[in-house]
Amino acid sequence: MTSITDNQPANAFYAQSGGVTAVINVSAAGLIQTARNNPEKIGTVFAGKNGIIGALKEELIDTSLESDADIEALRHTPSGAFGSCRYKLRSIEESRAEYERLIEVFKAHNIRYFFYNGGGDSMDTAHKVSQVGESLGYKIQCIGIPKTVDNDLPVTDNCPGFGSVAKYIAVSIREAGFDVASMAATSTKVFVMEVMGRHAGWIAASGGIAAENEGDAPHIILFPEIAFDEKAFLERVEYCVNEYGYCAIVVSEGLKNPAGKFLADAGTIDAFGHSQLGGVAPVIANLVKDKLGYKYHWAVSDYLQRAARHIASKTDVEQAYAMGVAAMEMALDGKDAVMPTIVRDSNQPYSWSVGEAQLSAVANVEKMLPEDYITEDGFGITEKARQYLQPLIQGEDYPPYKNGLPDYVQLKNILVEKKLVNNFEV
Amino acid sequence: MTSITDNQPANAFYAQSGGVTAVINVSAAGLIQTARNNPEKIGTVFAGKNGIIGALKEELIDTSLESDADIEALRHTPSGAFGSCRYKLRSIEESRAEYERLIEVFKAHNIRYFFYNGGGDSMDTAHKVSQVGESLGYKIQCIGIPKTVDNDLPVTDNCPGFGSVAKYIAVSIREAGFDVASMAATSTKVFVMEVMGRHAGWIAASGGIAAENEGDAPHIILFPEIAFDEKAFLERVEYCVNEYGYCAIVVSEGLKNPAGKFLADAGTIDAFGHSQLGGVAPVIANLVKDKLGYKYHWAVSDYLQRAARHIASKTDVEQAYAMGVAAMEMALDGKDAVMPTIVRDSNQPYSWSVGEAQLSAVANVEKMLPEDYITEDGFGITEKARQYLQPLIQGEDYPPYKNGLPDYVQLKNILVEKKLVNNFEV
Repeated sequence: MTSITDNQPANAFYAQSGGVTAVINVSAAGLIQTARNNPEKIGTVFAGKNGIIGALKEELIDTSLESDADIEALRHTPSGAFGSCRYKLRSIEESRAEYERLIEVFKAHNIRYFFYNGGGDSMDTAHKVSQVGESLGYKIQCIGIPKTVDNDLPVTDNCPGFGSVAKYIAVSIREAGFDVASMAATSTKVFVMEVMGRHAGWIAASGGIAAENEGDAPHIILFPEIAFDEKAFLERVEYCVNEYGYCAIVVSEGLKNPAGKFLADAGTIDAFGHSQLGGVAPVIANLVKDKLGYKYHWAVSDYLQRAARHIASKTDVEQAYAMGVAAMEMALDGKDAVMPTIVRDSNQPYSWSVGEAQLSAVANVEKMLPEDYITEDGFGITEKARQYLQPLIQGEDYPPYKNGLPDYVQLKNILVEKKLVNNFEV
Repeated sequence: MTSITDNQPANAFYAQSGGVTAVINVSAAGLIQTARNNPEKIGTVFAGKNGIIGALKEELIDTSLESDADIEALRHTPSGAFGSCRYKLRSIEESRAEYERLIEVFKAHNIRYFFYNGGGDSMDTAHKVSQVGESLGYKIQCIGIPKTVDNDLPVTDNCPGFGSVAKYIAVSIREAGFDVASMAATSTKVFVMEVMGRHAGWIAASGGIAAENEGDAPHIILFPEIAFDEKAFLERVEYCVNEYGYCAIVVSEGLKNPAGKFLADAGTIDAFGHSQLGGVAPVIANLVKDKLGYKYHWAVSDYLQRAARHIASKTDVEQAYAMGVAAMEMALDGKDAVMPTIVRDSNQPYSWSVGEAQLSAVANVEKMLPEDYITEDGFGITEKARQYLQPLIQGEDYPPYKNGLPDYVQLKNILVEKKLVNNFEV
């Protein structure tokens, strides 16, 4: 089969989807550079301005206008260089107009390859675009590129973006642990750090890597999978303070009480009378202060953790790049409705290779943290979890610096001229 | 003059004081290594377990039992390796028993050099110890070593510890800014990052370095020096969202309302009915949501910012080391009641040298952020501020990594045998 039309190689469309990461642009670099290395097979790579919305609105960034140096700089630039969005296409029945609009735009710009860089929802969308194209008689090859700090895609051993968050969290709780240990004799005894991962405890678990020896921080991890047991928790905090002099805690933003309610949403009211201020870390810290009287500090790193390209995992960077390269190669090989995956070939020494999954097998399946990754007391990670997590944070991949700051690139992001007369409201 | 007694070189006492930093151990390394290079002039360097409390309780760590490699590793280890404390000695009249106890302990261990690594209060204490020693006829040379993330010591151009926090904050708000810019089309439009510095806006100002071009994050800085003007603030947020698509805000934990009250303490009540949950970032974020309707995210990095040795400023590391070396050299030169300082010899290119200040000139004087470092609208930093701040974050000084994590050292911290029969309650 061939995707060549009109004697011109067909074009490609690439979009970034959902919450961005420290390395999603690395996948973009891999994809675009591979395309540039195959000019006889592929034309222009268009990128959606603000993700899939860019396709719906026919706002297509012409990446051929970006210099090779700037595309290379995507390898060390966090965030979504073309803009991302939270915009979910539903079933073909519910969202038919949107799917058809996508095909219309693709047709107008001779786009025969659709690359969607995102999580489970995005893989579902990519799969449906492939189906709609087929039903409309427009051949479009749809390739997913895995990306999610939540690490919840199935089939692939892990997801690009997660390793760098894991490294940031493990580094941060180690550093904060050292700090609190210094101060604990007369001051702060308890430190609480809130991390992302509302549905699954992958990120929370990654904090546990920092504790290599008895007494190391973190001493307690509060997982979204384990209902908060106030009594057991407070006993454990007290034990740690008595035994180690201090207690460092990692808490998932998704921690729930036994009634299944998020602790962060449990009716907090601020000075202006607003409710739902958010933040489970201050709730936990204050509970400790109230019940045990310990002086506390707390941190919420929020976006900092997923944007922290300055401390990205080299393994994560390499895998994100490989996913972008593999996605383009799969397209050039004529494949459709697939996603490159990361395959763990060996644990010690860690080695991995690129595999392939059907989008149908990836879409709408969440990979949860296995039960045997959490210790029986519910407050730590098991050796099995450590063996899984440890390789993912290996290596450093520092960005270049200028004036003491990471020299991240901002692309020109020039839109190609519209070819369709009708606008599309999203 | 000479400090040699009993044919044995006299010993030294070193203590870490107050909130620890990413580089206070670097000063300790400089001090101890310089002592080790001068064995004919100086005996053992004892370190106070948990700071000055270690001297009062005669809990003296024998640093000679630490290997050269471990002392060298202090150069890349954040926090206070010997423990620090928040314990303020008052006037000689009020705290005479404590000052006399210090002299008693020093005498028992042939300690003739007292090094106090801290901020303004510590410099005051070191000064008083010198005076009390003299009045009791016990010659003790007291040398201060500057350390404070608050950057509020006078005479010295800047304080070790500050440059690394400044770098962390500038890097973090740049990274978060890139993230929010990617998401703003359909999701988060406002990001609020809370930073330390309750009394002075040095750290808040450092966030401003990240904004090099029109529209760069951060778009707004809320200083502790400027009473919060809700109306002007909200107008500015709205302007940024309209003009740049998003708004990234750095807010000092010390932000006050026009009545002089901390916004973070303004009566927040959490789910358990506790008040004073703290955290000004969620208060500001919620205000934006309530008044302007923008989706927000917020972060509080707390201890992470001052413990972040992984992204320390090379300039800061070098200066912290030089302060430790200079302090020991001053002692060996027979000096008393002085503190080494950082002198800015030139701004472009930046160059600095080691100077000397009298403790009497440093004690109890706070260096505030100059008024002309804040722009007229109160929301940004001036070119003058940038010229002062920029050199302090120059260069990276990465720690070694092991298993994907910074390989920080934990010392053995073995106490020397007590010589005094009486205990001292602190």
